[in-house]
Amino acid sequence: MIKVTLIGTGNVSWHLENIFSKTVGVQLLEVLSSRGAAISNYLKARQNFAKNDQPDLYIIAVSDDAIRSVSRQLKNSEKLIVHTSGSVSMDILPDENRRGIFYPLQTFSKEREIDFQSVPICIEAQEVNDERLLKELAATITKSIYEVTSAQRKSLHLAAVFVNNFTNHIYQIGNELCNQNEVPFAILKPLISETVRKIESLPPFEAQTGPARRNDRKTIEAQLAQLENKNHKEIYKAITESILKTYEEEL
Amino acid sequence: MIKVTLIGTGNVSWHLENIFSKTVGVQLLEVLSSRGAAISNYLKARQNFAKNDQPDLYIIAVSDDAIRSVSRQLKNSEKLIVHTSGSVSMDILPDENRRGIFYPLQTFSKEREIDFQSVPICIEAQEVNDERLLKELAATITKSIYEVTSAQRKSLHLAAVFVNNFTNHIYQIGNELCNQNEVPFAILKPLISETVRKIESLPPFEAQTGPARRNDRKTIEAQLAQLENKNHKEIYKAITESILKTYEEEL
Repeated sequence: MIKVTLIGTGNVSWHLENIFSKTVGVQLLEVLSSRGAAISNYLKARQNFAKNDQPDLYIIAVSDDAIRSVSRQLKNSEKLIVHTSGSVSMDILPDENRRGIFYPLQTFSKEREIDFQSVPICIEAQEVNDERLLKELAATITKSIYEVTSAQRKSLHLAAVFVNNFTNHIYQIGNELCNQNEVPFAILKPLISETVRKIESLPPFEAQTGPARRNDRKTIEAQLAQLENKNHKEIYKAITESILKTYEEEL
Repeated sequence: MIKVTLIGTGNVSWHLENIFSKTVGVQLLEVLSSRGAAISNYLKARQNFAKNDQPDLYIIAVSDDAIRSVSRQLKNSEKLIVHTSGSVSMDILPDENRRGIFYPLQTFSKEREIDFQSVPICIEAQEVNDERLLKELAATITKSIYEVTSAQRKSLHLAAVFVNNFTNHIYQIGNELCNQNEVPFAILKPLISETVRKIESLPPFEAQTGPARRNDRKTIEAQLAQLENKNHKEIYKAITESILKTYEEEL
């Protein structure tokens, strides 16, 4: 039984609390707010707890900017401390403690239930025993566990900004273009789904189609002229330029 | 029974041939190449056909640039002529003929089978009877039929370039970032799928997350510095700028 104390009240913490509380093999001792005196009160009280009620690790699931100060409150707690951020190095945690990372690579919002079994969890630790513990903990909720370094995790987080945040904004542009012309956005959804299914069988490099892929300058110019929003024009130009560059040797 | 003669040998024609040949209610008379003398030979031969072997319509599924010249060969054929392009106006077809549009809004490649039942088909016609015929034809293969004007179709095609071509290129960038850092691209796929599933229940405007959505300039600067490819930097900047602009009033 792995005993966990979770810190934070955001989306990641909310989902981890949700899944850990119904997972066999994990005992969620406490979910603490990172604000006010919640942590110091807990640490004080914990001194009187039985050995069985001590956590094996603290999971800090707070905003990137707060990780340092929150983790300082746990300094010298003689426990493993991990955070759940994609972009923050492990070194930000106090070096008096055993340190690690437990990063679920997914977009979380309270409105949507997540099937954790398919959520990749990226772990990192300084000590072999801690790595083993984090793997064991991850295995209670997912089939997909990766050991990644802080540098790799940083790149993954950047890639996630592209494939999640940027893709979603592109959907938003599609939605606006539909609204402007009074066609329902739903008409684009089968295309959006097929675009994703396609990369299951073809690498995106090979799946690429469209005017930029064909170097069809006439259509590119016509579509740029068609766009009214200055920011959408800039996006059209930047992505088109990048596609042209990617395939220029083939053309 | 609707009788169709299909012209073209590209991906759209290939898929239409595939589906029409197994659809009850449609008789595919012929699939003609747009090259050489195939069309003129067919028209000559057709003069001797029985009334029952005459097509109700010609579907021209060729590249945008070839639609005009191909359709000129069918001039005065006294039949309905439609093309399948998203970006070309109906007016390009010869005005001596009855004209229309039969535009399946999907990405087609010969390697991938398509479930036509969910492919939206956009139709347009000048005459009510022809519109009825095109609806009837579309209904034999899909549940999703839309009447759209040439102007609406042009915007839909532009939106399709965003949500399909541009999104796929963003997946390609994610793939490259993974390769550079020796993590498997597969690790991003659950996130990619969830990004699409999310817009089933939330409009993209509300589903937006990430550093630009939070106006988190520190992370934006750090990620821009992290990107090595000049074109990827430009895409990062353009989309970030557009997200900041979209939500600036809320921040």
